[in-house]
Amino acid sequence: MRIPILNLGRILLVSIQVDLTDSDAMEFQSDLVNRVAEIEALGVAIDITALDVVDSYMARVINDTAYMVRLLGAEAVICGVQPFVAMTLIEMGRDLLGANCAFNLEQGMEILQERIAKRGDAYLDEDENE
Amino acid sequence: MRIPILNLGRILLVSIQVDLTDSDAMEFQSDLVNRVAEIEALGVAIDITALDVVDSYMARVINDTAYMVRLLGAEAVICGVQPFVAMTLIEMGRDLLGANCAFNLEQGMEILQERIAKRGDAYLDEDENE
Repeated sequence: MRIPILNLGRILLVSIQVDLTDSDAMEFQSDLVNRVAEIEALGVAIDITALDVVDSYMARVINDTAYMVRLLGAEAVICGVQPFVAMTLIEMGRDLLGANCAFNLEQGMEILQERIAKRGDAYLDEDENE
Repeated sequence: MRIPILNLGRILLVSIQVDLTDSDAMEFQSDLVNRVAEIEALGVAIDITALDVVDSYMARVINDTAYMVRLLGAEAVICGVQPFVAMTLIEMGRDLLGANCAFNLEQGMEILQERIAKRGDAYLDEDENE
């Protein structure tokens, strides 16, 4: 099954609410990265509130995806890491380093908007210098 | 397959990106209505941008869902009705009367926020009179 990707202007929202098979996870990754490039997204929020368990493979996919999104030039925020998920990730020696984290999607959107606004200011400054 | 429902604060976002079987459509409807009641959602945006075809049954489900959401006390906006979908709906004698419509999810969110803010003002006015 495909994970739906929602456009909110140039921000993309994805919510992973079911456990993904390995191939679904890869499909999710390529779908998302392609979509970011296609619409030149400014930011991506990946919501995993509904996941009670994140295995080592899934943690890597999420982390890599966030890194890829950043490489393309967009911001990435991972939202709703559950306490138990956080504990097992650290115990497994894994981390979600590719992105900022936020309690929930709402807070994640705020972080994205803040970061995008900062970039906007940077662009504006450049424009003024020209 | 279940349609993921995203929480953005007390607004719910759903994006229907694949054709649903009749039973999936009913499941979507009850999932969404229950979720609205559960979190006492203020508004719901249903994005159907990705649907190129909406049959008579699906149109009714979307329409009924929007009505139900309103009966519960929340606002509903249907986003991204494609031109061809609009044409076939009207030709079939169907309409999406249960909700406001918006070009895309971003505009839908704006409409919801505006309507919710207006309600907020109404509540505030009541409070002031007490």
